[in-house]
Amino acid sequence: MELADLTPPIPVYLGQLAYLALILFENLSRAVVLAPTTEAKSSLSGATAEVLEAHEALITEMRDAGIDPVAAMDPFRLPLDDYRRRTQGADWPETLVTCYLTAGFLTDFFSGLAAGLPDGLSQRVTVLLDIDKGQEMLVEELRAAIGASSRLSSRLAMWGRRLVGDTMLVARSSLAIGGELPGQERIEPVFTELISAHTRRMDALGLTA
Amino acid sequence: MELADLTPPIPVYLGQLAYLALILFENLSRAVVLAPTTEAKSSLSGATAEVLEAHEALITEMRDAGIDPVAAMDPFRLPLDDYRRRTQGADWPETLVTCYLTAGFLTDFFSGLAAGLPDGLSQRVTVLLDIDKGQEMLVEELRAAIGASSRLSSRLAMWGRRLVGDTMLVARSSLAIGGELPGQERIEPVFTELISAHTRRMDALGLTA
Repeated sequence: MELADLTPPIPVYLGQLAYLALILFENLSRAVVLAPTTEAKSSLSGATAEVLEAHEALITEMRDAGIDPVAAMDPFRLPLDDYRRRTQGADWPETLVTCYLTAGFLTDFFSGLAAGLPDGLSQRVTVLLDIDKGQEMLVEELRAAIGASSRLSSRLAMWGRRLVGDTMLVARSSLAIGGELPGQERIEPVFTELISAHTRRMDALGLTA
Repeated sequence: MELADLTPPIPVYLGQLAYLALILFENLSRAVVLAPTTEAKSSLSGATAEVLEAHEALITEMRDAGIDPVAAMDPFRLPLDDYRRRTQGADWPETLVTCYLTAGFLTDFFSGLAAGLPDGLSQRVTVLLDIDKGQEMLVEELRAAIGASSRLSSRLAMWGRRLVGDTMLVARSSLAIGGELPGQERIEPVFTELISAHTRRMDALGLTA
């Protein structure tokens, strides 16, 4: 069982991913507002632009396929807005961790599912999921902050664990839309790799997963 | 006396405008978060992308001219962050009015100043100040909300007056940076046209300026 075997119908996949791009955008824009320096602000705005481009490209994909983008995104609005509120973080370091970990997990997840899309669409979506602008800056900012404070380090480690829990629920529910939810035993193996990648991201920050 | 006679030195002009683009971005991204429908959210994200492109283009202009973008933007950070906090608005309609009125006033103002920049740069900056994506949607959303509530209408009219006051102070102070502040009698005539344009925007919303 691989993620590509669990790919939802095209309108569901594109609608959810397009709305998720808005959520990643909202998190990044919050980080821009909270950024303590002009340099961090300007650098994060580049990452934000990249996520917005992905959103717009997904809207175009839907239009080209005769899918109404608003109708396709709408079913995800309430649950994903709720996800965003729960995961936005209380301050600059928490919000940075959110941007880094949730974008990482979700783009991995949707890249895996993209392999189950028809040829052409699959490749185009994979390209626009390659969102990594500003990641290096995120990691550097966080490593510096974490290295300087063990109290911050343990708070962010806990925050990272909570984030991956909430993000896995979102990912899992997306497999259920438009069909029955696959059983836990079918899903767990496909999440193993995603969780390893999450652990590597936590390690990169110097946090215990 | 025209705005073009008051254009500050290039690093000051580009640095302030680039930081202001971040402020307009922060206001728009707040509107995206507060937007009550998927359609409004997605449409505003297009406007947000446009402002981010302007920011990035200004960074590129500075780099090409051998100006350090962060050093050029930095002097504007505290006053403009303060301006943003004072003008962000308490809810969705106030934030929409902020996006509409402050972007309108400030792009008019910086377009006027752009005429005093060297050829080439002047034209490129004028093109990237032509920010109007999502304006129509903003106006439609606001007209509908304002038409339905006279209480909202008078609250937003007051908000619009406060915004233009704060925005004029920002504009005026930008003429002072890098030199002495021109006297009130020299500045007032150049603001007359900007205020007329502001009044037309208030009219378009059905608000009394």
